[in-house]
Amino acid sequence: MLTTLPDLAPHTLLTSYRDGTLTPRDLITALREKALALNSDYHAFIHVLDEDETEPYLQRLEALEDRSLPLYGIPFVIKDNIDLVGIPTTAACPAFAYSPDETATVVRRIIDLGGIPVAKANLDQFATGLNGTRSPYGICRNSVLPEYPSGGSSSGSSLAVALGVASFALGTDTAGSGRIPAAYNNLVGLKATRGLISTHGVVPACRTLDCTTLLTASAEQASMLFSLLARFDPADDYSRHNPQWNAAAAFGKVRPGFRFGVPAHPDFAGCTESKTLFADAVARLETLGGIAVAVDLSPFLEAARLLYEGPWVAERHLVVRDLLTRDPEAILPVIRAVLETAPGYSAGDLFSALYRLQHLKARCDAVMDDLDCVLTPAMPRPVTLAELQEQPVAANSLLGVYTNFMNLLDYSAVAVPSGFMANGLPWGVTIFGRSFTDQYLLSVADAFQRTSALPLVGGQTLGAPVVGRAASNDRARVVVCGAHLDNLALNWQLRDRHARLVRVARTAPDYRFYALAGGPPLRPGLARCAEGGQAIEVEVWELPSAELGSFLTQIPAPLGLGKVELEDGSFETGFICEGAALSSATDITSTGGWRAWLSSGGPSTISP
Amino acid sequence: MLTTLPDLAPHTLLTSYRDGTLTPRDLITALREKALALNSDYHAFIHVLDEDETEPYLQRLEALEDRSLPLYGIPFVIKDNIDLVGIPTTAACPAFAYSPDETATVVRRIIDLGGIPVAKANLDQFATGLNGTRSPYGICRNSVLPEYPSGGSSSGSSLAVALGVASFALGTDTAGSGRIPAAYNNLVGLKATRGLISTHGVVPACRTLDCTTLLTASAEQASMLFSLLARFDPADDYSRHNPQWNAAAAFGKVRPGFRFGVPAHPDFAGCTESKTLFADAVARLETLGGIAVAVDLSPFLEAARLLYEGPWVAERHLVVRDLLTRDPEAILPVIRAVLETAPGYSAGDLFSALYRLQHLKARCDAVMDDLDCVLTPAMPRPVTLAELQEQPVAANSLLGVYTNFMNLLDYSAVAVPSGFMANGLPWGVTIFGRSFTDQYLLSVADAFQRTSALPLVGGQTLGAPVVGRAASNDRARVVVCGAHLDNLALNWQLRDRHARLVRVARTAPDYRFYALAGGPPLRPGLARCAEGGQAIEVEVWELPSAELGSFLTQIPAPLGLGKVELEDGSFETGFICEGAALSSATDITSTGGWRAWLSSGGPSTISP
Repeated sequence: MLTTLPDLAPHTLLTSYRDGTLTPRDLITALREKALALNSDYHAFIHVLDEDETEPYLQRLEALEDRSLPLYGIPFVIKDNIDLVGIPTTAACPAFAYSPDETATVVRRIIDLGGIPVAKANLDQFATGLNGTRSPYGICRNSVLPEYPSGGSSSGSSLAVALGVASFALGTDTAGSGRIPAAYNNLVGLKATRGLISTHGVVPACRTLDCTTLLTASAEQASMLFSLLARFDPADDYSRHNPQWNAAAAFGKVRPGFRFGVPAHPDFAGCTESKTLFADAVARLETLGGIAVAVDLSPFLEAARLLYEGPWVAERHLVVRDLLTRDPEAILPVIRAVLETAPGYSAGDLFSALYRLQHLKARCDAVMDDLDCVLTPAMPRPVTLAELQEQPVAANSLLGVYTNFMNLLDYSAVAVPSGFMANGLPWGVTIFGRSFTDQYLLSVADAFQRTSALPLVGGQTLGAPVVGRAASNDRARVVVCGAHLDNLALNWQLRDRHARLVRVARTAPDYRFYALAGGPPLRPGLARCAEGGQAIEVEVWELPSAELGSFLTQIPAPLGLGKVELEDGSFETGFICEGAALSSATDITSTGGWRAWLSSGGPSTISP
Repeated sequence: MLTTLPDLAPHTLLTSYRDGTLTPRDLITALREKALALNSDYHAFIHVLDEDETEPYLQRLEALEDRSLPLYGIPFVIKDNIDLVGIPTTAACPAFAYSPDETATVVRRIIDLGGIPVAKANLDQFATGLNGTRSPYGICRNSVLPEYPSGGSSSGSSLAVALGVASFALGTDTAGSGRIPAAYNNLVGLKATRGLISTHGVVPACRTLDCTTLLTASAEQASMLFSLLARFDPADDYSRHNPQWNAAAAFGKVRPGFRFGVPAHPDFAGCTESKTLFADAVARLETLGGIAVAVDLSPFLEAARLLYEGPWVAERHLVVRDLLTRDPEAILPVIRAVLETAPGYSAGDLFSALYRLQHLKARCDAVMDDLDCVLTPAMPRPVTLAELQEQPVAANSLLGVYTNFMNLLDYSAVAVPSGFMANGLPWGVTIFGRSFTDQYLLSVADAFQRTSALPLVGGQTLGAPVVGRAASNDRARVVVCGAHLDNLALNWQLRDRHARLVRVARTAPDYRFYALAGGPPLRPGLARCAEGGQAIEVEVWELPSAELGSFLTQIPAPLGLGKVELEDGSFETGFICEGAALSSATDITSTGGWRAWLSSGGPSTISP
């Protein structure tokens, strides 16, 4: 029997298991008891798995010779709109409950990787709500302050992690349901790019928008889990392949000079404390070398309004249509009121809304193109349980101002703890960006978390980042030294790929530089040398990673792309040259670069 | 005055202009007269531009010093649902007509590049139809046989090119409207990937699906025009960037070994002649080295049925809703009958149809993943004017069997002439493939056109292809020689990118091969040499072009990707090595390859 529970951070548990100071069985037993004990106050769980129900998972782990599974013995909690075979799925509506025939793909994968389910978590009924009070299984109060809600709809999932019942939890997020409870409870909430984490086996809210989300103590943990769980699922029609620029290797240290948007006119709903906390968050990203860019969020916010004031409610209605006809009283009045607007929308209304959304997305994408990410408050301000009781719809809507647009616009977003209000309530921000930049956004979130000494849930503390490599997103850098330089003969090959010049730079002083035979266009060769080298002037360009391959394939021999060392000791992808071509080339190292050589006479200086 | 009209192929006209044997003014005058003369029989044009209307375009060209514009003096015709300022746009409905304030983006670009508009072309009203008979401006009969229709809805556009009134024409295509008239009139009809050719200034049919299309005599001409016109348009909310693997350079010779799908159970609606003609088309692709793969088209055909038997009609309804209320008699009864089903569809119906489409698309995409393209008949069989009169809906629907699904599934498609029926009627096929492989599909179409001596409209004949390079699509090849070889330590970097092994090969005998210092993993360096080289065993892999960039960026120095010459003299993108690293490496050329070296003892053979 465990007398005190350890910090549940996955790497801590894995270490304890390896050391033999802890077993999954002892931990799960203790967590079950804790979950049951907490539930009368918090109503976090609709079902806590009993001994018989966890036994098969424990036995399987105990039978393993090899204990290197990445989630070996890691306890997790599942929002109760996600299927786990053997336990009814309720979506917080007893009359809707069913016994699933199979486990949701994402849950199956976690279990395959060693994870152990502890409980099915409470939620706003049918995941319709952002606050945590809309459930017949009881109100989920905040993990820190009883007069506030947990946030929702992934209310019980957030409490499970915040109160130390699980290392992480699965939630869902259609309009903020994973991010709002994260912000309320000092957690990281990752709503990854749509389609990257399977939704097969999840009760839909809006099928075209739904995401399965992760609630964790830190961005680093979310990154680890995302890299394990972002897998194409043939059973999920909305599943998408994760491009490999967004794989685990993309998580790393953020380079100074990144550009982050901030709302030009942020809405704090009159809360001066939120305003101050947000200014502090902006300043902290700046200390990481970020460049704040004021952004007009109005097209984003207009897209957000489409979701609840438009025909998407028809998707939610489809899910419960039969129940609504058969037994309307089984659905909470506040949710019934939302759903009952659905039949009024025609297919024409929906197409008109889709056109409007497409128009707004085109405007938003143009903004995002120029940025690495955007920082907003997670919500304008926290609302209290009393406010929710008084204005169940308006107070709920206020929470979604900064979250509702993300799924519609196909962006990725991560909620990150940023501070505490004077009364002790956790306060968070959202970092969001283009689809398929999840690991980059998590890298920014990780760096952001490390700029402060905020206590994490579970007691873990974050030191300096341990990852050595630079974070990357959907853009790649390429160092050019010849005809691709700005305004020269082949520069259009970069510009046609929407490349931008990052900076003019010099190589490390270990290169020799040659004018190759042949042309036009005239081309140089940059070659590393053991001694007698010099720094050569180059340019660093950045282009979409998806366009780098076709850029490469059109480069003829003897040139290619490898790694070029720059003056600051960093290595960037850039032009290299096969050694065999240099014997017929002219050494022009002394000119210091291609432009200098061209302006000093260039080809006319080569003796035939 | 021109007494005889020249072939209107763009390159022929450009040559004549350059030689001084023809002027745009003379040509346009002659074409105007021809258009007017033909119109009483064919009803191809709703408006032929008069002398005053073409004058500004001619004067502009005549004032140019530099006559190198790529479309200098090239006459083209515009479907009358696309705006040209100064001429009313009718969409073949006089009561709907309006005077556009600006010219459609794509038309503007053609004019900027030197093109001269000749006429606005007749169409099936509101582009609703595939046959060419649904217009108050008259029935468009076929260009060859009067008892057949032109096909539609881009009916007049097809006749303009087929009858020699324009070098090319703009049509639109939502469900086959560009491809069916192409097939009926011995033309190439390109429905490029949605969003690549602007639809700004086009009267919508289904805004989420509409494409602006090109009707030309040859695939080569379509490729040239596509490369000029596929430009991102900020004014078009549905515009998309064309990835550069699909730029002009992708057009080329098709490599033997390409895999093309053919319907496992093709539907010819009982037409044995169509069956024979299709078998001939399959055989001709096989003579090009293609490998026919039988494909179950049922998910494609089910998607097609969603379009006309589902809620997408609500999009068409939105366009004419006001007119339908105000003046229903202004709309042809057959089209009114289609539109009047629209108000019955709810937003829920549309979401359900979108889910079904997503499910079918997932299945279709899995099929397409394994293929380079698919070959189908353009239509099961041609229908006659008499059949259309008797069964205006059923006969029209039959035409769309192989075209209706393309826009819904986001594929690119090109209709290509394939032969003639015994009665002389042109008969065509469709070659389709994944989005953003337009230039590849046109390359296949071009090669296909060159396998026969079919007469092109205008009298041009096609010789052997003039392009020397290999056609490319959204996949790229990479030659690996070390730890990335199948099953070796870094092979997962390819497999995680959905790469497949194309073949084991050997380099040209001009390489030396080295085991580099360092590791693990152990890595070789492949280096070209002037003499004393040998052929080295390598593997050729193929992966999505979008994934090649991130593969490249994770390759550390001294390796990189350049061009490797293979035994057959071809150059493929593959691993190269910086020369400076070779001095500390071990020469293992004599082993002939990495696997041989590993199995002969590998690192243990290196003296320290």
